[in-house]
Amino acid sequence: MDKKMSILLFSGEYDKALAALLLANTARTMDIDTTIFFAFWGLCLVRDPEKFSTEDKSLYEKMFGVMTPKGPEGLPLSKMNFAGIGKKMMIEMMEDDDTPPLTAFLKGAVKKGVKFYGCKLSMEIMGLTPEEMISELEVKEAKDYLKDALESDIQLFV
Amino acid sequence: MDKKMSILLFSGEYDKALAALLLANTARTMDIDTTIFFAFWGLCLVRDPEKFSTEDKSLYEKMFGVMTPKGPEGLPLSKMNFAGIGKKMMIEMMEDDDTPPLTAFLKGAVKKGVKFYGCKLSMEIMGLTPEEMISELEVKEAKDYLKDALESDIQLFV
Amino acid sequence: MDKKMSILLFSGEYDKALAALLLANTARTMDIDTTIFFAFWGLCLVRDPEKFSTEDKSLYEKMFGVMTPKGPEGLPLSKMNFAGIGKKMMIEMMEDDDTPPLTAFLKGAVKKGVKFYGCKLSMEIMGLTPEEMISELEVKEAKDYLKDALESDIQLFV
Repeated sequence: MDKKMSILLFSGEYDKALAALLLANTARTMDIDTTIFFAFWGLCLVRDPEKFSTEDKSLYEKMFGVMTPKGPEGLPLSKMNFAGIGKKMMIEMMEDDDTPPLTAFLKGAVKKGVKFYGCKLSMEIMGLTPEEMISELEVKEAKDYLKDALESDIQLFV
Repeated sequence: MDKKMSILLFSGEYDKALAALLLANTARTMDIDTTIFFAFWGLCLVRDPEKFSTEDKSLYEKMFGVMTPKGPEGLPLSKMNFAGIGKKMMIEMMEDDDTPPLTAFLKGAVKKGVKFYGCKLSMEIMGLTPEEMISELEVKEAKDYLKDALESDIQLFV
Repeated sequence: MDKKMSILLFSGEYDKALAALLLANTARTMDIDTTIFFAFWGLCLVRDPEKFSTEDKSLYEKMFGVMTPKGPEGLPLSKMNFAGIGKKMMIEMMEDDDTPPLTAFLKGAVKKGVKFYGCKLSMEIMGLTPEEMISELEVKEAKDYLKDALESDIQLFV
């Protein structure tokens, strides 16, 4: 029987996104069917930095869009961010250990067949359009997440 | 066979509470039996704003009671709170999309039959009495949470 | 059939660590087989405060080691830390209720047979050596965590 893991990535932090992608990528090497459902701040990870648009957005949506991270490398650390110093340190330490940075983990997840779902309602609240996201992201509803989670052997809220 | 979801709401933030209630309410429309176990900061969501009392409390409990949010609308955002500006923006964006604010989600959850459990030990630590909480909250022990979680198909720590 | 719980402790905060240990200890009294997999900031909880070393570390690892909490009582609160005032208040309130502080919970977990796993990759990234951790910690890979989680009835990401 195939095993299945479902991660709900709510947080938009570098280290939490790293943990989620690391688990997802490891799971795929073990043939575990894996889905990440990106909701709220987690959506910042799957924004395409090249495709940011302010068209057809309310003032609030524009401000929100400008103020939130655009793509993986813009994410802050959940702790010790210190205006980016902590993150720079962590990235340097990761490079010492040949651990690839977040963007590489994200690309690895795509290549390994991790499914990427984006929460429709969160996207509407945050004023993000499907065109602004990476092309691998499928827009899905909370109901779809729950169906997927019910079938999973592991469910994590990150 | 009936499906079951168990959410442990530890966090006391507007956006995380929103995510938890959204999942709980959606689960109920899919006939999934749903429980939210409110612990630590999550208890702030189910305080009754009208029933705050300082009677029979230690100095620390009084201070804690005054300094922590009283009810759903007092909760801060987990990110970008900026002294409430980020939250105001999110609520405005939600109103643009006809998404009801947190209080409406909480009432919806009660109406839809989401079970509300309050962690006994957390309440004692934080100096909260059952009388200060919304009437739908049942005070339960960690053991009760674990029993409930063991029977659930989905368990999330939010 | 034996029941099983798997907690991934990612967070390095006093209150979240408390919640994780409380659940783990309660689970053990119910004969639930319990594992805590310490990753990233969660590793701060299982550092041995007496064994901190800067030998054979890069400059970044040394700085990181100095700047992060060493052992349970150094952990900050996830909210209302206010340079430690909030935590002091919480500990005072816990003492009023005869709730033991975090170190006691940690020792209790060891005594009750909660298994302690430390994430190998996180330790490498953060520059922590097995010698700097409490002796009960077994160093494990993400794959081991996933195997354990797949067999568990409850999985929580804290």
